[in-house]
Amino acid sequence: MTRPGSTVRRPVEQVSVADEGVKRRTRGDVLAAEEPLEIRVVRGEDTRGGALDEVATPVSVTMRTPGADFELAAGFLYGEGVIGGGEAISSIRYCTTGEQQYNIVHVVLSPGAAFDPASLQRNFYQTSSCGVCGKASIEAVMGPACARVDSGLVVSPDVIVSLPDKLRAAQTVFERTGGLHAAGLFTPYGKLLRAREDVGRHNAMDKLVGASLLEREPPWGQRIVMVSGRLSFELVQKAARAGAAVLAGVSAPSSLAVELAEAAGMTLCGFVRGGRFNVYTGGGRIGTERAPATPW
Amino acid sequence: MTRPGSTVRRPVEQVSVADEGVKRRTRGDVLAAEEPLEIRVVRGEDTRGGALDEVATPVSVTMRTPGADFELAAGFLYGEGVIGGGEAISSIRYCTTGEQQYNIVHVVLSPGAAFDPASLQRNFYQTSSCGVCGKASIEAVMGPACARVDSGLVVSPDVIVSLPDKLRAAQTVFERTGGLHAAGLFTPYGKLLRAREDVGRHNAMDKLVGASLLEREPPWGQRIVMVSGRLSFELVQKAARAGAAVLAGVSAPSSLAVELAEAAGMTLCGFVRGGRFNVYTGGGRIGTERAPATPW
Repeated sequence: MTRPGSTVRRPVEQVSVADEGVKRRTRGDVLAAEEPLEIRVVRGEDTRGGALDEVATPVSVTMRTPGADFELAAGFLYGEGVIGGGEAISSIRYCTTGEQQYNIVHVVLSPGAAFDPASLQRNFYQTSSCGVCGKASIEAVMGPACARVDSGLVVSPDVIVSLPDKLRAAQTVFERTGGLHAAGLFTPYGKLLRAREDVGRHNAMDKLVGASLLEREPPWGQRIVMVSGRLSFELVQKAARAGAAVLAGVSAPSSLAVELAEAAGMTLCGFVRGGRFNVYTGGGRIGTERAPATPW
Repeated sequence: MTRPGSTVRRPVEQVSVADEGVKRRTRGDVLAAEEPLEIRVVRGEDTRGGALDEVATPVSVTMRTPGADFELAAGFLYGEGVIGGGEAISSIRYCTTGEQQYNIVHVVLSPGAAFDPASLQRNFYQTSSCGVCGKASIEAVMGPACARVDSGLVVSPDVIVSLPDKLRAAQTVFERTGGLHAAGLFTPYGKLLRAREDVGRHNAMDKLVGASLLEREPPWGQRIVMVSGRLSFELVQKAARAGAAVLAGVSAPSSLAVELAEAAGMTLCGFVRGGRFNVYTGGGRIGTERAPATPW
């Protein structure tokens, strides 16, 4: 199997309706690729002898845009609480048996790293033991796995309003397809450190978290995260797990996203468009003055 | 517990950056509500005596915008292949024990209706037995549960370009929050039959499918479905399960969405904006002439 790319070429028929009638013409088009990725976990103790796929535990199948698959796997496992940090990962490799190796990754844990295959299942039902509600969902997230953000960061409003254009400029696949979500990691002065794209909004965030994890970067207490779309509960959850001080999006948050951000002590900005934005919680981290031009 | 609404009021701080400096003012804002919904299934045979929650099988927890919860549950179960059609459902009720009853629904099946609680788990691994890849995903969807769309429908391009404005006009919650996805069901002449909204793109489609299912409407061979966002594999899967002849969206499809639509014999239109759109597959259902004004 050849390694899947992040885009696929296909013919498309363009139809336009005007007073003079209907025009149809066929041309080549570039689509964002979408393929399943299966994430499997191998305990460090189980790697001696034998093939990895004989000792691997399947954890998840997600539809994703190929590219940054190892980051996606690492970020997903961390976000779901399956692993406790980057040091829990010994190596990540594509499956080397069978035909589909580029759509299956094996995450090999460090010897002795805690791994509870039932944790995903347990997370799923954690809320229902005490009834399913927003409050219980927040309590389930804000457990031992997710401390409150502890950051004295203050960001100039100029920086926040500058982020959407910078993120868009970094979206190389979006540029060609018009169809991808993105998440970007920024310094307090608005310098883009890293951007990731995916057909799935949550995958883009998982890739961003996973990249920091694999690079052994510190938690995001001095970072701003910007996403291309709506701010959902799950996006806030993933950013909170990474300790993000500020999460911003070009569109609206949900009610529960705001409540979780508040519980996590994270600053949440929405509708960042045209020199304006809304602050839903954590306004103390947004400065009251325009920033001078930064020297770097 | 009071029944959760589809919106929540919260104060928000608006920040604007201009040459004269930074302006901040606090005002009331309306957010799209997001709450978990747990879906539980009860076999028809198990309803005699005893409380429902003692015999219910938890199937899924999804984050959703409250409203149309019964439709969401029905559409989800059908889309995942857990039930075979509307006749399999005897009744749907909120859980009546404990405090959280509006976030748990019991779907009571008709006596004798097939229900295999392991089907969700099996669907999950169906692809991995033969390796995980796009082709396997399509084969997994296009099994006995999903026949090819058999529809001689031809739709005028005028109708397609008219759909986004009609869908937007029907988005009552979006109007107040600016933050919701939508799915709409239309006749071949572009009359809106029904629209559903949700913070989750897939939930909006599940609600739309579930409404048809609960109303015992025929499959969508004479229907056009329009969605507010991107066209993913899962959205095409859900529309294909409902037999939709045409699926249209305001944004881009993924590669696998196009491949699945092609395999399902469904017409897929994307980037429906400003009098134009792209046809990715099934162009035979798009007419070549402008339609005369419809008499109804």
